[in-house]
This record gives sequence, C-alpha cells and structure tokens, in this order.
Amino acid sequence: MQEIIQISTDKHNGLYDITSAVKSIISKNKIKNGIVNIYAQGATAAIMIQENWDNSVQNDVITLFNKLIPSGVWEHDAQDNNGDSHLKAGIVGPSETIPIINSKIGLSTWQNIFFCEFDGPRSKRDIVITIISL
Amino acid sequence: MQEIIQISTDKHNGLYDITSAVKSIISKNKIKNGIVNIYAQGATAAIMIQENWDNSVQNDVITLFNKLIPSGVWEHDAQDNNGDSHLKAGIVGPSETIPIINSKIGLSTWQNIFFCEFDGPRSKRDIVITIISL
Amino acid sequence: MQEIIQISTDKHNGLYDITSAVKSIISKNKIKNGIVNIYAQGATAAIMIQENWDNSVQNDVITLFNKLIPSGVWEHDAQDNNGDSHLKAGIVGPSETIPIINSKIGLSTWQNIFFCEFDGPRSKRDIVITIISL
Repeated sequence: MQEIIQISTDKHNGLYDITSAVKSIISKNKIKNGIVNIYAQGATAAIMIQENWDNSVQNDVITLFNKLIPSGVWEHDAQDNNGDSHLKAGIVGPSETIPIINSKIGLSTWQNIFFCEFDGPRSKRDIVITIISL
Repeated sequence: MQEIIQISTDKHNGLYDITSAVKSIISKNKIKNGIVNIYAQGATAAIMIQENWDNSVQNDVITLFNKLIPSGVWEHDAQDNNGDSHLKAGIVGPSETIPIINSKIGLSTWQNIFFCEFDGPRSKRDIVITIISL
Repeated sequence: MQEIIQISTDKHNGLYDITSAVKSIISKNKIKNGIVNIYAQGATAAIMIQENWDNSVQNDVITLFNKLIPSGVWEHDAQDNNGDSHLKAGIVGPSETIPIINSKIGLSTWQNIFFCEFDGPRSKRDIVITIISL
C-alpha cells in the first residue's frame, strides 16, 4: 500500500504535524501489523519524530539548527544560497519507519510525525507513505 | 513478527546496549533474510548504532550532545524542563532498520544497537522490534 | 531480494554517490512497488540523502561535521584515535529506507544516496541493499 500526502508550507524553517494524515491511511487500509515508512521528497526537507503538546519543541528545533548550522557561510551558497537548508535536511534525514501494532501506529503518547521544512515557503511538498504488512 | 523489549534506565543521559535481545528475537523466530526495525517509544529516547568495545564512545556521545545541546536554555523548559532531551532524541531519531542476512543480523563487527536515554532514569522504556521477512 | 555493494574510499572524510548502483539493483530485479533499505556496515560510516548537483554540499557536510565534532578531544581517542569518526557516523546513522514507486526509486530530483566515509581511506566498504516488495 503506497500513497502520497501533499502539503504546503508557509515558513522558511518550520515543522508541520502530519500524524493524523498518516493515521488515516493506516486505518482506511485496515492494516493490522507491520511497518509504515514516511519519506519526504526534497533535498531541503526531512521527517522528525517529536513532541506536539504545544509549539515549544518545534520552535526549539528551529532555534537549535539555526545556531548549529548558520546560513550564509557555505560553499553551496554560491549556487543557490541554501547551503544551511541542505545540511539541516541531511542530518535529520528524509524518512522514519514506524511499527503498526494491532491496527494502530506505534507512536508513544508524546511522539508525533513532523515534516521539517528547511527551505520554504513551498506551495507543494510530497511525502510518500508506504505500508508493509506482516 | 513483532515483539516489545522492555528495559529500565538508571542515568539521566545514557546508552544501553540491546543488541543481544534483538539477536535473540531473530534467532528464535528462525528468520533467514529480511529487515528488522527497532523503534523506541518515547519522545526523549532514541536508537543509535555505535561501537561497544568499551564505554568510551558511549561516554563521548553524551559529552558531545551536552555540548551541542545544553540544558536550561529552551522554550520548552517552561513546560517540563527537558527541552534538551527532546532535541537530542529528535536528532538521533527513534528507529533504525537493519538487514537480516542468512539468519544473522547484518551489523559489522563493531556495530551494536543502543537505546539512548535522554531523560532518565525511567523504570520502563518500550522498544518495538518488527521483522519483515523476504 | 538482498545484495551487497562494495566500494573503496580514498579520503579520510568524504561522501560517495551510490545512487546508480542502487537503481541498477532495483531495475534488474523488476521491483514495481515497495521499499529499499540501504545499510552501511562499519561503525565509522553512514548513509545520507543529499544533493549532487556539484561537490559543494558534499564539501559543506564535511566542513560542518569537522566544526561540530572536532578530532582529538574524545575519550575514545585513547583506544584508536577516531572518536570523531564514530560520533559523526552515529549521528548520521548507517541506513536509509526509501520507497520504490512504479519501478523507480522514490528520490526527488535533487536527492541522491551517499555513502559517508568518516575514517578512510578504506580498500573495501560493504553496503547491504535489501528490497521488500509490496
């Protein structure tokens, strides 16, 4: 089972919660046990599992990356001025693979699935959801 | 095939080797070839593949993260004072997916599977092991 | 379907594009839809998805890691003087899992698959490719 989620992003750097869209795909396909792979297409985007009680951790992720990986100091900036975007995306990575347990996604209470935009805003970002059943 | 490993942790930040528990699940289920997904439930925990010749690399991982991601300076600290724990967990990530080759886990000599505790100690941490056979 | 790619590396730190080798395995095995897991064996190596328009982002990855994780200051250096290599490998991680969509790997235009060498040069590095079909 494979499906593509599309989102738009309104910030240059921002985290977008896609947990409910992934849960919908799992439940409508009646998957009992297996794994779900979430894959962000785009070399300046990534997938991170993170807390979503409020926006604080999401803001802290952006603050941390802007401190560790400042913009404007990279060799790639001579091409299209987004060296920091590529570095952030490469470190976080474009995918996460999560178990499906008894028809539910195996996230803990405070784990949510976030699309990380590191070079927005973008009108369209594609995220590929692939489910492998046991 | 899906099974949950439970461990307790005795440090605030620490790496715990779970390689032998994962190997046991593979061998008792007589899996020949495929992949094994190891998933840590908890937004302040993670899974890292790392060397285990002695404790030095494990200590260095903690030292590095405490330097790059200091505690006490995050927006999320106003909620429950563990902003650094979430950031460390988000960067390392909650899962690793490893091949199974001829009935053995496809780790190299010096690769071991570690549960990373970033907000301990905890009496119980759950790690979901899912095996997909070829 | 499981196959091992072997490469040699000529730098101490360097990124090596293995995208075409992975694509060949997918096309010769006539996989239509599923996932491909790419796993680097070696506790000082990793797999990163990154842009490959020119060498600039690859150079920036090495520059960034040498700044964040300097060599020569780690407890593990007393063993074999490569503490930084292990830390870089642990943060990037040894594997990526990518969807296969309609017989093609689900990378976007600027995403390529790189083997990251953090303790070379090495005459032989093994990368395990495992494909799970839907």
